[in-house]
Amino acid sequence: MEFSSKLLEKAVNEMAQLPGIGKRTALRLVLHLLKQPAEQTQFLSNALTTMREEIKFCKSCHNISDVDVCEICNNSNRNHQIICVVEDVRDVMAIENTNQFKGVYHVLGGKISPIDGVGPSQLNITSLVEKAKLGQVEELIFALSSTMEGDTTNFYIYKQIKDLPIKTSTIARGIAVGDELEYADEVTLGRSILNRIPFDFSIK
Amino acid sequence: MEFSSKLLEKAVNEMAQLPGIGKRTALRLVLHLLKQPAEQTQFLSNALTTMREEIKFCKSCHNISDVDVCEICNNSNRNHQIICVVEDVRDVMAIENTNQFKGVYHVLGGKISPIDGVGPSQLNITSLVEKAKLGQVEELIFALSSTMEGDTTNFYIYKQIKDLPIKTSTIARGIAVGDELEYADEVTLGRSILNRIPFDFSIK
Ligand SMILES: [Zn+2]
Ligand SMILES: [Zn+2]
Repeated sequence: MEFSSKLLEKAVNEMAQLPGIGKRTALRLVLHLLKQPAEQTQFLSNALTTMREEIKFCKSCHNISDVDVCEICNNSNRNHQIICVVEDVRDVMAIENTNQFKGVYHVLGGKISPIDGVGPSQLNITSLVEKAKLGQVEELIFALSSTMEGDTTNFYIYKQIKDLPIKTSTIARGIAVGDELEYADEVTLGRSILNRIPFDFSIK
Repeated sequence: MEFSSKLLEKAVNEMAQLPGIGKRTALRLVLHLLKQPAEQTQFLSNALTTMREEIKFCKSCHNISDVDVCEICNNSNRNHQIICVVEDVRDVMAIENTNQFKGVYHVLGGKISPIDGVGPSQLNITSLVEKAKLGQVEELIFALSSTMEGDTTNFYIYKQIKDLPIKTSTIARGIAVGDELEYADEVTLGRSILNRIPFDFSIK
């Protein structure tokens, strides 16, 4: 790509550093900003730098937070003995959105992935194991993605807490509610048969 | 979407103002920035604000430029009597990339689109007509997209210069080089038959 302006080129190159944003998309976004009032670019830049510099991670669960201890960890109405272990803040948001979980979270910040150079020490695993050893935890729910990396991470954590009197579980995988069986992939369908649950007459 | 942090929410909302970037994508991009060194966010923000504030548009052709008159307009080796009329800087980049055009450009900055609230006065049309009236222009090549808006814009400009001794042309539309006829849409195939050109034995 040959640019008629170094300023344009630099903006496009920085934008194209973002994952999933190629040079063409970056150019489209940057040209859009040029057509909008200058304030829009100012607002975007300020929001990003302020966020990057001032954002905090909850001292207890490592969720993104504006304060030292996040609202969920600070909520005495939640069950602090049940901890749902997730990869990142998006998983917390997704589960919170269901209104089905009243425990607390532990955000690992990723999963073990040797191929991407992510080892256990880069994740918030030590603090989880320490928390477990304090004896206040009843159950750990592993809610990582069901990939090899997710399974590796689950197992890595499990090994360190398996002698503690803590129940471990993983979220149920199966056919999505409302989905046709015939379109489900084999692995999901297989798991949903293996992990079948007693039929509940009360659910209509 | 319920955010655990106002700073995060604000950054996501600003990012999601960009065209084609939904809230989910915005969140993914912002979380990526949080995982990278703070400098990356700083570089991105600085590149965007500097560009937005300092970028210039060529006084002659309205192309994006770091100087008052762009390199193309400033190049005496190019034919300034042949002007290719395009929508935006991406079209200039695409045509320059072919190395087939040695004239100059005129960047309209869009096309007439009543539905999007874009009228002729928001486009760089007056300066093009004035340039044409100076008598130094031999040919205008319309290279707008072949949509109703593109056609409307072409015609609007054409009406204002049709009494001047200026040749007008549009770029050829047809089956892309290497494409199979059977997969081409009817309109394109139809145009490429109507606009057929003499067979050239020298092209192999
Ligand atoms: Zn927390
Ligand atoms: Zn120029």
